[in-house]
Amino acid sequence: MSVLRKATPERLGAFSDGVFAVLITVLVLELRPPGVPTFKALLLLWPTWVSYAVSYLFIAIVWTNHHYLMRYAGEATPRLLWFNFAHLFSMSLLPLSTAWMAVSELAPQPVAFYAAVFFLVNATYICLIWELVDRAPGGEVSPAVRKIMHFRSIATLCLFGVAAVVALKYPIIGLGICIGCLIVYLRPDPPEPEKRKSRE
Amino acid sequence: MSVLRKATPERLGAFSDGVFAVLITVLVLELRPPGVPTFKALLLLWPTWVSYAVSYLFIAIVWTNHHYLMRYAGEATPRLLWFNFAHLFSMSLLPLSTAWMAVSELAPQPVAFYAAVFFLVNATYICLIWELVDRAPGGEVSPAVRKIMHFRSIATLCLFGVAAVVALKYPIIGLGICIGCLIVYLRPDPPEPEKRKSRE
Amino acid sequence: MSVLRKATPERLGAFSDGVFAVLITVLVLELRPPGVPTFKALLLLWPTWVSYAVSYLFIAIVWTNHHYLMRYAGEATPRLLWFNFAHLFSMSLLPLSTAWMAVSELAPQPVAFYAAVFFLVNATYICLIWELVDRAPGGEVSPAVRKIMHFRSIATLCLFGVAAVVALKYPIIGLGICIGCLIVYLRPDPPEPEKRKSRE
Amino acid sequence: MSVLRKATPERLGAFSDGVFAVLITVLVLELRPPGVPTFKALLLLWPTWVSYAVSYLFIAIVWTNHHYLMRYAGEATPRLLWFNFAHLFSMSLLPLSTAWMAVSELAPQPVAFYAAVFFLVNATYICLIWELVDRAPGGEVSPAVRKIMHFRSIATLCLFGVAAVVALKYPIIGLGICIGCLIVYLRPDPPEPEKRKSRE
Repeated sequence: MSVLRKATPERLGAFSDGVFAVLITVLVLELRPPGVPTFKALLLLWPTWVSYAVSYLFIAIVWTNHHYLMRYAGEATPRLLWFNFAHLFSMSLLPLSTAWMAVSELAPQPVAFYAAVFFLVNATYICLIWELVDRAPGGEVSPAVRKIMHFRSIATLCLFGVAAVVALKYPIIGLGICIGCLIVYLRPDPPEPEKRKSRE
Repeated sequence: MSVLRKATPERLGAFSDGVFAVLITVLVLELRPPGVPTFKALLLLWPTWVSYAVSYLFIAIVWTNHHYLMRYAGEATPRLLWFNFAHLFSMSLLPLSTAWMAVSELAPQPVAFYAAVFFLVNATYICLIWELVDRAPGGEVSPAVRKIMHFRSIATLCLFGVAAVVALKYPIIGLGICIGCLIVYLRPDPPEPEKRKSRE
Repeated sequence: MSVLRKATPERLGAFSDGVFAVLITVLVLELRPPGVPTFKALLLLWPTWVSYAVSYLFIAIVWTNHHYLMRYAGEATPRLLWFNFAHLFSMSLLPLSTAWMAVSELAPQPVAFYAAVFFLVNATYICLIWELVDRAPGGEVSPAVRKIMHFRSIATLCLFGVAAVVALKYPIIGLGICIGCLIVYLRPDPPEPEKRKSRE
Repeated sequence: MSVLRKATPERLGAFSDGVFAVLITVLVLELRPPGVPTFKALLLLWPTWVSYAVSYLFIAIVWTNHHYLMRYAGEATPRLLWFNFAHLFSMSLLPLSTAWMAVSELAPQPVAFYAAVFFLVNATYICLIWELVDRAPGGEVSPAVRKIMHFRSIATLCLFGVAAVVALKYPIIGLGICIGCLIVYLRPDPPEPEKRKSRE
């Protein structure tokens, strides 16, 4: 019975991958062939194109980090399931918020909403780190890596919050802060402590 | 040949996860960026927002319980396949019924339909319990857990039925009964018998 | 190198499951909450409801048989990949043909088209049987099972062809033949030869 | 820790399969049952039909080659993840470009765009070859196979580029070149060196 009770995280990963796959392709459904057969007509659809490319890129970054973190999962605990649902939910708002921002041509409130969605994605990501890395048995994650992951995730969380407020006045700066935070996550694993030390 | 004949439940899980992933993201497609770049315009879409959030939450609860139950599956028998198809079918009506309820602003008949869909989801869930837990070889599921699962699932089935009838007159009460039943399923595994006893 | 060269059929199954999951939920997207909050308004949408329920059921039957057959797959050969793509393609026409039949209220030509789609699904299924069961090493599939599978699949193929022609004159009879054939496939594995003998 | 750090490419395959499954079925959503119950009305939708069939076939070819290449993956390195995302992104433009080409009835600029999308798909495929085959440990891929894969992929890349330019003047010839290149990829594994030698 104890064997049965232990839930492997495989189906959690499969379900998450399904949700990611649907979300990453949602905006391509919005791309309609233009009525006129010219490149100009295609380029006139630029808000949809930019939305698709940007939300594809950012969902890809979220997937990469989710995939990286899930490797630490040894069991599908109820808390992990619910943190994961919250993470997927906040991510599911990305295509909408990106489209709104593009359609409104970077108006203040849509950019603030955009930053707020990333704030949510980051907050639920911190919950996943807390569940998967912090509660992992002692030797699995070195304290240095743990510390860097904490610092990075809380720093970006604060920055997304700042971006949401700043965007209400200066949307371009708010968007710039968001993009800066996302670049940090292009590599899911934090830099090795040795390299970090040598840089400091 | 006997090895080939035994169907593992892996593909059943993968297929179910695909259906869950599509269904849980169906309503996000309904969320369109508002034409005006203000938070007010976004909030005016509240029936779609509430529909999405609520049906996301409830499909997540159904997935969690499905995932929990599937761990008892040792073989993909024809009966299990068909009970699972019936379960997924009744669940696939959730986004529609939630949207109808929200759009009609909690009118009696849509709420009754909503409760009826949950009645179906619960009824097919009982079939899965019957196939997976009751037919499991003796020692795997303790009689106490089995008894609690039976009691809980039949009690909520009756309550969903009552809710469907009550909603025709008092939709708010009907909806309240539904939400009460769903809270019971937030934890897929029934409480340990020892704890239960001490509470009784 | 020889290990790498051998392609396992796992990803083939995962990809097929994804396609099945999308197709089985395509028609639920067509179900829109009616504008009026009454059961009557919901029932007026019956062609969409019937389409959804019927195509769900028939795609479920196709999945069950696909799942059953795939268990014989030991290697993802190029021929298996392409037969599988052809099978999934013909199945992907099912929601459309079901919807057309329902919308036209069983007009002759849509019913004939519907039977023709099942003819295609069955023809590509025979290719899969040919690739997976007939080419399986000697002892894996008993000659009796093999013979029954052949007989059943070719018989239903002929019947679907007949149904497509008959439907042009008598759509109800054509549809009846289709449904009769599908009932045969509710159980994916052919009846045991012993039982069959005793019946003959 | 070293065990945890090594990311298996399973989830990468599952996620890719999900994206492929959604994309391959995107265009079937465009196929609407015609209003009139006649075959003529169905045939009048031919641009949508041809788009669906052609983009299904070509996405199937891309999947087959992706599936073939992924077998060489031993670890989900960050570079592999990003090359894979780029490959999936360029492929996600296929349904749109096919639909545009069909709707415009093979106008010059849509055909050029179509060839350009295949150029992108091929370029990202070369990146995957570079990551998976060239960086594989010595004995896994024979130098002859490696050489053929390189030659084939670079040759078709150049041809797609030529097709994009030629199509601006002679769309039919540009399309012909694209189809010729795709036929080469119907078999994912390059012909055995021995056979090749005897042909030369």
